[in-house]
Amino acid sequence: METLVYPGSFDPFTLGHLDVITRACQLAPKVVVLVGHNVAKNYWFTPEERVEMLQAATKDLPQVEVRLWHGSTIAALEPYLPHAALIKGLRSGNDYDYELAQAVINRQLGQIETIFLPSTPSFSHISSSVVKELAQNDLDLSEFVTPEVANQLKQRLKTLKGKQ
Amino acid sequence: METLVYPGSFDPFTLGHLDVITRACQLAPKVVVLVGHNVAKNYWFTPEERVEMLQAATKDLPQVEVRLWHGSTIAALEPYLPHAALIKGLRSGNDYDYELAQAVINRQLGQIETIFLPSTPSFSHISSSVVKELAQNDLDLSEFVTPEVANQLKQRLKTLKGKQ
Amino acid sequence: METLVYPGSFDPFTLGHLDVITRACQLAPKVVVLVGHNVAKNYWFTPEERVEMLQAATKDLPQVEVRLWHGSTIAALEPYLPHAALIKGLRSGNDYDYELAQAVINRQLGQIETIFLPSTPSFSHISSSVVKELAQNDLDLSEFVTPEVANQLKQRLKTLKGKQ
Amino acid sequence: METLVYPGSFDPFTLGHLDVITRACQLAPKVVVLVGHNVAKNYWFTPEERVEMLQAATKDLPQVEVRLWHGSTIAALEPYLPHAALIKGLRSGNDYDYELAQAVINRQLGQIETIFLPSTPSFSHISSSVVKELAQNDLDLSEFVTPEVANQLKQRLKTLKGKQ
Amino acid sequence: METLVYPGSFDPFTLGHLDVITRACQLAPKVVVLVGHNVAKNYWFTPEERVEMLQAATKDLPQVEVRLWHGSTIAALEPYLPHAALIKGLRSGNDYDYELAQAVINRQLGQIETIFLPSTPSFSHISSSVVKELAQNDLDLSEFVTPEVANQLKQRLKTLKGKQ
Amino acid sequence: METLVYPGSFDPFTLGHLDVITRACQLAPKVVVLVGHNVAKNYWFTPEERVEMLQAATKDLPQVEVRLWHGSTIAALEPYLPHAALIKGLRSGNDYDYELAQAVINRQLGQIETIFLPSTPSFSHISSSVVKELAQNDLDLSEFVTPEVANQLKQRLKTLKGKQ
Repeated sequence: METLVYPGSFDPFTLGHLDVITRACQLAPKVVVLVGHNVAKNYWFTPEERVEMLQAATKDLPQVEVRLWHGSTIAALEPYLPHAALIKGLRSGNDYDYELAQAVINRQLGQIETIFLPSTPSFSHISSSVVKELAQNDLDLSEFVTPEVANQLKQRLKTLKGKQ
Repeated sequence: METLVYPGSFDPFTLGHLDVITRACQLAPKVVVLVGHNVAKNYWFTPEERVEMLQAATKDLPQVEVRLWHGSTIAALEPYLPHAALIKGLRSGNDYDYELAQAVINRQLGQIETIFLPSTPSFSHISSSVVKELAQNDLDLSEFVTPEVANQLKQRLKTLKGKQ
Repeated sequence: METLVYPGSFDPFTLGHLDVITRACQLAPKVVVLVGHNVAKNYWFTPEERVEMLQAATKDLPQVEVRLWHGSTIAALEPYLPHAALIKGLRSGNDYDYELAQAVINRQLGQIETIFLPSTPSFSHISSSVVKELAQNDLDLSEFVTPEVANQLKQRLKTLKGKQ
Repeated sequence: METLVYPGSFDPFTLGHLDVITRACQLAPKVVVLVGHNVAKNYWFTPEERVEMLQAATKDLPQVEVRLWHGSTIAALEPYLPHAALIKGLRSGNDYDYELAQAVINRQLGQIETIFLPSTPSFSHISSSVVKELAQNDLDLSEFVTPEVANQLKQRLKTLKGKQ
Repeated sequence: METLVYPGSFDPFTLGHLDVITRACQLAPKVVVLVGHNVAKNYWFTPEERVEMLQAATKDLPQVEVRLWHGSTIAALEPYLPHAALIKGLRSGNDYDYELAQAVINRQLGQIETIFLPSTPSFSHISSSVVKELAQNDLDLSEFVTPEVANQLKQRLKTLKGKQ
Repeated sequence: METLVYPGSFDPFTLGHLDVITRACQLAPKVVVLVGHNVAKNYWFTPEERVEMLQAATKDLPQVEVRLWHGSTIAALEPYLPHAALIKGLRSGNDYDYELAQAVINRQLGQIETIFLPSTPSFSHISSSVVKELAQNDLDLSEFVTPEVANQLKQRLKTLKGKQ
């Protein structure tokens, strides 16, 4: 396995994501972070902003490449196959039932394996949606995201509130 | 990751196990199957029989090495570290909560990651204990184990029944 | 039990649904497929299109009747009671906790039992929402839906994209 | 479906079991209760005692037949096929993951469907093992088993304590 | 523990909520019901209507105080700390994985414990969203909400239908 | 709530148990730890040894009383009622389905509430059985139990090995 591909929307990027990326770097020489974008969904940050967040946070991990990706994970993986696999963090058994269906499909349609990495317990309650909720309530985010992302969340919140 | 270590008791070895081993061979250049033995537990097959079962079934997979192992997985992994990880098949979300605790411990005490590979759906109902139950009821095992193991189960059952 | 009633939105109808319907035909002389429609939700296909999909796919199953239904399942079942029960496919333990609440309510308010049929493992990752996601990514749908539905999904996608 | 077959060990028979049997009688003209016996396991009651418990409790349900059964459910079902299915009560999503494997096997090896009936909420905490634990602690069993079974549990407990 | 704080949106208030509140009154001398309001979400009832519903239903429980709350639970709890804890009803294991993340965050950011009270089995299928679905289908709500709330749901439904 | 009663077998007492006890001391003025003993089960430590372990570990928590208890939790709670509740740590959703049944029974038979406290994430993989497994493999226990218990485990293991 030369490449582990880590897909997500990273809206925003959290310390839980960083933990998966750092550990993936121990498992394969190259780690590609795929920043997904679905036009039908609402995001706090543009795809470009999310790519930049990830590039800033992983600038000391030379194995990591961050890529923007529209459309199917399967198509995005083609340049890396057959020596690549998807990697996903797994927080709880509940998570798994959903992720399993995705993994079966990626294997069936794209001959791509998905490997699951269990969350570090002290990060298992962190998710992008939890972080946005905390930000809206003006709570301290320092144990959930990098200082840069905490700052970007504050700026974004001002813009969002200004629009209302 | 040069080595994936697949621990288990394999009492007996099933087609579900073979599926994990075959897929692990796509993920790493070397796959070590660790046949565990706990003196406090009852097994149908001796550790040596279980090692032979696995060697016979994986003889066409040159990447696979089968090893007998007493004691902690952590000690067994030392020769392969740091370029090794444990691999486990994952059948359901229920499985996961138990396996997660083991994975956290192996990381905490041995700096070893565990990666989880989702079961192929058509194998997700197969386990060693199910196979033994089917064998006791004299049911057809051809979709659950290799022909060799099916035969060994029949022989063992005769011995076990003779003892009663 | 003379009638099994299989409720759903079938947006679109999948091979997983067809599997439940075919198996239900072995369990009761009559199977009614109730195509639900909730005005507050967005669908890719009109209720009439979904009924036609199901009628086309079940035309060789003379026991099957497809009906459009607005409102409560309980009201829809009245003509068939007391010799009827609801039938639902069950993919995972996670599914069950949600479905259980519905089943308890249907029994409490309508004296209607719900029986659960476990998914065939090779279909357990298929759902209408997964199929729509695959269609949007232009992936091969032949193992998920009938050829007719695959075709209708392609047509619908053209219309949906044209609207944006 | 002419026959629903309800397998179990019924050690002892509980009000939760009675609830499943009563509801099964609404779903099929004949309900066969299969009292399983595995020589490798310890039971409080002999197979014959368990059959008698069930016969006494279902004497007013003429559709119910109680049968003792050694060995595989699949063999026990042959006389009733193809117009039979297994029926199981389902208490929680956790239960389901285990039961699913059994159901898939019974279908694969015996062409037998298993249908799951959700527990009545007020019975969902009752199981044979809970009842034995309560009996050992001399607690009131009237909401868990029939008066006859409560009495038999008391008698058995005296014998068991006498042996120690 | 002098105060138990029970947060929720109560849109509408159900008999399941009332059960938690009544039991909480046995556990602490003071119970504060926090009626949450998130401007980004759609509710059937205004915050004031929800507060009134709760005040009417708990008027015979002098320990209960109902408060409207915008923003983070953590800020709302400050006046009661350190002798307060959050209380949540828990319906199933599935519920728990989500609630656990919230509880960990409230402890990490606000030094507030969350205690979970298991649902009374006969209420475990009741939720605000189920109640709204039943109301839309014009079904009998008497076992799910108080008569006052049933009436308010009917009135609201007329208004909502008039708007369409 | 004047008394929280924390039941368990504590074979051995872990840092996860200590975490629950310490947090319970914030929730009630008195915490009773009930050390259960079931003659039908095998333990590594005698009831008296387990009581002493707990007393040593909680000697700086004056609110804590450690009691040996044979038989039903319900009987053990009588002296503390009605101003008492049971408290249990909850590690995962899986845990909950089992614990829920116990909680419903304790409420039904003894009018005793059970409140669940979510595990601190960094302790959620620790259990008595995991600790014994680690001890048998001669692994470092310092992040799982107190130094005293680690020592007692080593001593016990020598005795157990001597017996074989």
